[in-house]
Amino acid sequence: MAKQINTIGVLTSGGDAPGMNATIRAVVRTALSKGKKVVGIKRGYNGLISGDIHEMGSKDVSDIIQRGGTILHTARCLEFIKPEGQKRGAEMCKVFGIDGLVVIGGDGSFKGAEKLAGLGINTIGVPGTIDLDIACTDYTIGFDTAVNTAMEAIDKVRDTSTSHERCSVVEVMGRDAGYIALWCGITNGAEAVLLPEKKNMSQEELIRMIIENRNKGKRHNLIINAEGSSEDSVKLAKKIEEVTGISTRATILGHLQRGGSPSAVDRMHASMMGSIAVDLLCEGKSNRVVAYKEGQYLDYDINEALAMQKSISEKRYDLSKILSI
Amino acid sequence: MAKQINTIGVLTSGGDAPGMNATIRAVVRTALSKGKKVVGIKRGYNGLISGDIHEMGSKDVSDIIQRGGTILHTARCLEFIKPEGQKRGAEMCKVFGIDGLVVIGGDGSFKGAEKLAGLGINTIGVPGTIDLDIACTDYTIGFDTAVNTAMEAIDKVRDTSTSHERCSVVEVMGRDAGYIALWCGITNGAEAVLLPEKKNMSQEELIRMIIENRNKGKRHNLIINAEGSSEDSVKLAKKIEEVTGISTRATILGHLQRGGSPSAVDRMHASMMGSIAVDLLCEGKSNRVVAYKEGQYLDYDINEALAMQKSISEKRYDLSKILSI
Amino acid sequence: MAKQINTIGVLTSGGDAPGMNATIRAVVRTALSKGKKVVGIKRGYNGLISGDIHEMGSKDVSDIIQRGGTILHTARCLEFIKPEGQKRGAEMCKVFGIDGLVVIGGDGSFKGAEKLAGLGINTIGVPGTIDLDIACTDYTIGFDTAVNTAMEAIDKVRDTSTSHERCSVVEVMGRDAGYIALWCGITNGAEAVLLPEKKNMSQEELIRMIIENRNKGKRHNLIINAEGSSEDSVKLAKKIEEVTGISTRATILGHLQRGGSPSAVDRMHASMMGSIAVDLLCEGKSNRVVAYKEGQYLDYDINEALAMQKSISEKRYDLSKILSI
Amino acid sequence: MAKQINTIGVLTSGGDAPGMNATIRAVVRTALSKGKKVVGIKRGYNGLISGDIHEMGSKDVSDIIQRGGTILHTARCLEFIKPEGQKRGAEMCKVFGIDGLVVIGGDGSFKGAEKLAGLGINTIGVPGTIDLDIACTDYTIGFDTAVNTAMEAIDKVRDTSTSHERCSVVEVMGRDAGYIALWCGITNGAEAVLLPEKKNMSQEELIRMIIENRNKGKRHNLIINAEGSSEDSVKLAKKIEEVTGISTRATILGHLQRGGSPSAVDRMHASMMGSIAVDLLCEGKSNRVVAYKEGQYLDYDINEALAMQKSISEKRYDLSKILSI
Repeated sequence: MAKQINTIGVLTSGGDAPGMNATIRAVVRTALSKGKKVVGIKRGYNGLISGDIHEMGSKDVSDIIQRGGTILHTARCLEFIKPEGQKRGAEMCKVFGIDGLVVIGGDGSFKGAEKLAGLGINTIGVPGTIDLDIACTDYTIGFDTAVNTAMEAIDKVRDTSTSHERCSVVEVMGRDAGYIALWCGITNGAEAVLLPEKKNMSQEELIRMIIENRNKGKRHNLIINAEGSSEDSVKLAKKIEEVTGISTRATILGHLQRGGSPSAVDRMHASMMGSIAVDLLCEGKSNRVVAYKEGQYLDYDINEALAMQKSISEKRYDLSKILSI
Repeated sequence: MAKQINTIGVLTSGGDAPGMNATIRAVVRTALSKGKKVVGIKRGYNGLISGDIHEMGSKDVSDIIQRGGTILHTARCLEFIKPEGQKRGAEMCKVFGIDGLVVIGGDGSFKGAEKLAGLGINTIGVPGTIDLDIACTDYTIGFDTAVNTAMEAIDKVRDTSTSHERCSVVEVMGRDAGYIALWCGITNGAEAVLLPEKKNMSQEELIRMIIENRNKGKRHNLIINAEGSSEDSVKLAKKIEEVTGISTRATILGHLQRGGSPSAVDRMHASMMGSIAVDLLCEGKSNRVVAYKEGQYLDYDINEALAMQKSISEKRYDLSKILSI
Repeated sequence: MAKQINTIGVLTSGGDAPGMNATIRAVVRTALSKGKKVVGIKRGYNGLISGDIHEMGSKDVSDIIQRGGTILHTARCLEFIKPEGQKRGAEMCKVFGIDGLVVIGGDGSFKGAEKLAGLGINTIGVPGTIDLDIACTDYTIGFDTAVNTAMEAIDKVRDTSTSHERCSVVEVMGRDAGYIALWCGITNGAEAVLLPEKKNMSQEELIRMIIENRNKGKRHNLIINAEGSSEDSVKLAKKIEEVTGISTRATILGHLQRGGSPSAVDRMHASMMGSIAVDLLCEGKSNRVVAYKEGQYLDYDINEALAMQKSISEKRYDLSKILSI
Repeated sequence: MAKQINTIGVLTSGGDAPGMNATIRAVVRTALSKGKKVVGIKRGYNGLISGDIHEMGSKDVSDIIQRGGTILHTARCLEFIKPEGQKRGAEMCKVFGIDGLVVIGGDGSFKGAEKLAGLGINTIGVPGTIDLDIACTDYTIGFDTAVNTAMEAIDKVRDTSTSHERCSVVEVMGRDAGYIALWCGITNGAEAVLLPEKKNMSQEELIRMIIENRNKGKRHNLIINAEGSSEDSVKLAKKIEEVTGISTRATILGHLQRGGSPSAVDRMHASMMGSIAVDLLCEGKSNRVVAYKEGQYLDYDINEALAMQKSISEKRYDLSKILSI
């Protein structure tokens, strides 16, 4: 028989992402609408271990759907990687009567959720990361906002790059994944995109392309470099300038990509996924992760989800080349 | 044997939508990369009839991916609804050697494309409308930008509505469809959404909800009213104020929802769909419309596509109610 | 001898404006840095009369500099227009020990402040209104954000107006003043601006201009209509379309102009003016309004300030005509 | 007798700034409205020397008031620093009949204008630089947009910095001047601002402040570092993290600060100053620079202007400290 859930906990863990607040709001309000008690846990698994746990009402999540960051704060928690930490977390769930837990974060956070599930706490993961690097889902909360933030910043870099007829190398986030970079490559109309997942153009090929572009009359070049690619943005810019004589600047967009008011896509997915996570708990499910796959919301076993592989779209990669002619 | 395509025409028709320029760019550059000649047709089918047709090179679509509107201009064309107009259009295609045509627009524009296909011109439709009211596809170019524009405007209305503890009625576009309204309802955290597709709350129910919200301590209410719903926004606001005594304001967002730099989602779909339209023409296909369905790009016969029905998501409609408690 | 101030009250009154929160923050933190106690008064003079008054610490104004609206809420207060209401307000100041009061708002709010000053409460007004209609100052908090909001919305209207080769009539706020309209006229490159302060072009002159523009090859026209002008936007659009045959749309931007995160100019003026208001109170001054005049922060006697007249810049009005050729 | 002006040239020089296009538009349209011929010169003084000079009509500046960058392109020109280069420039003016020249740029560009004036070409400088480092004027075109771009980016950094309870060091542009940094310091509510004009807090003082903030319960710190200050942002962040144990990240905003659609303030000053520059030429003036001083538009002799000194506002610097408590 499925476990009856009375109190639902919610935490955000790992790197923050726009839309985490909208997810918290959806968890809290869906749970309240089903007559459950809800508690918010601060600073990810740290707050679970230390008992930084607080009851949340409907008004506690008023006026946050449009806010960046996370009102519950987030952190990585080294202690929770070890079995003792996990055991303390599970005990604290019992102390606070938490029989269902929603974990908003990435793969690392889901590993923690899986451990708690093994210790008898029903847990559901919701994918929240700007990097889109969770294999079981086509979408992770925060990605769309991060791409739009990067894209709009790069539109501005392009203005000045065009005025000065320069080459610009812009580095975007994504850790080991190139999704943000590939999206910016296409949506900013970049001349080249360097990805961790692809054997990149060699520096020689890249420089030859820039020179050929000049020969064709193109007066500025935009190169998007993924954080996880093999090229260092600053060194690459220097090299391009040295060899071609074309003034070249590197910009590393940095942490601004993690913040800002979430886009409509992020608010929508956050609202749907947060609500579904509570539905799953109320159905007695545990050790599942909410996913969006081929236009549908689904859920996967966390262990299976963590074992999946993901690759970037070849069609999109090819498109980024065709459209930059 | 599939018809060999040498010259591809492209036009935008009907109401404009952000991302139309990104689509034109993708059509032009994909066609050029395949060695085809490309011509741009001005003001939709009007320009086809009058011969306002111009060759386009790669530079003609430089620096437009981020621009709102359409460089080809757009219009509705009454003459093209009649058989003589269609025949003149087909003849003009022959005069300019256009053997493949990409039509960017909505259902009305696709009807024209279907007529041209019947007259021997290979045509492919690309869905471009902010209204999302094309049944065969989960996405239409322009929708995401329009939703974000409306949502950000409503976030601002909410600031002042909260400060003054008012009720706000905000009318969003969408013609006979409620997609923009439903998305704003969820992403702006509205207290109620009035849709054409749903038997709306009666005025009495709506007013009772507002009074109950006041009794619960909610100090402001946000009502999203779809353009195509049965309620007049100004009259509704007046009625709410009269009955409840709560200061109420109506805002009709209007045409700003059609403009602005396209979002990342719109630039991506525009690039993919524009490119796919050219691929289809080059494969000898005709009378097809490009669609995005369950995470995949597909194409449908235009006649079949026009016969399909679309409805709004019940899950999302229910969610809009649960999350506004 | 100047009165010693121990407790400073702050309230926002009248129509809200972006930057009010930044002003409150500056008042609170400057007062605290001088060792004063600070209390926030809710809903303008209503909260003063009803005693809705709460002590504020430094953290109460954390993370609000970038928020639209006002955390203290605002309202118009009919009761405070009458002498009894004013007397009750002054008594409540004594009950809460408020010996200095900062009133953030417009002329109407300053009249109340002047009454309180007459009843022995030291008061300082800070100009906060999007309308810029306070005669003694070149700047009022909220104006720059409102202009940018309107301007960006009109940039979007222009995209679609250009695509469709339409005429657009856009109505902006400003009550009886035309400052927002004039700024939008120049910064959006409008073909005409209709202001309350000017004998406008007659409908005949306006329509003749539109036809002449068409004859010159201009394919779209943008008319900015101030809320306080003598023309009704919807009727004017209808008239233009009737006479010229050019498709014409009216957009009334409405309350979104009051909200949104304040611009840098608004945050800066808000921070400076809020801080100066506290400085003036601590110097024992009363019945003064903070002003920004010819690049300097000054203060005026409220009665003198209320008696001043303001007119729009002729140079700017002329410029709006020259640049729209 | 004042020289009669028939043909006016316009160029943009040095670093680009948002609003340069709006300035070009104002120069072109004001000159045309006075019956003058206008020519645009490409890539600053390079185009003057090489004769890359083109007549401009009213439509050439349509739809550019809202665009970032400069349609005339810009560059630094080493050749023009030498007398021969200047002589060639003056000769090219005669070849193209340019008897009045508007130079949009910074101090370096004005030095070139002064040389041309000495060679008989009437020249007027218009201050266009994001750095605000021109002594004779309170405003330079581009500053407001750059500050808003930086401020909005830093608002986003703050979201993630708050969620993670981190310290953020953000480096903003400004070359040897700290205006952008000081404005961001105040408008973003930073805990500290490091400026070139001030003997900064030592690293020890800064770190002590961060620790004291932690002791007071402040969970995140924002440090704005001006490009021209004595601190290296990356090294400073590393040092703070080492000593305090607080996770600290450096972000160097970079070239995005130069781009983007100009703000209302920039479009307004650009329109006014560009128009005034033409007025001055038509009055026969030369070797002047347009300035905005204490709320008025004025003009100064270029040599006098270049000799002036500018300092940052002490009041504002003090305010940045008071409001960050």
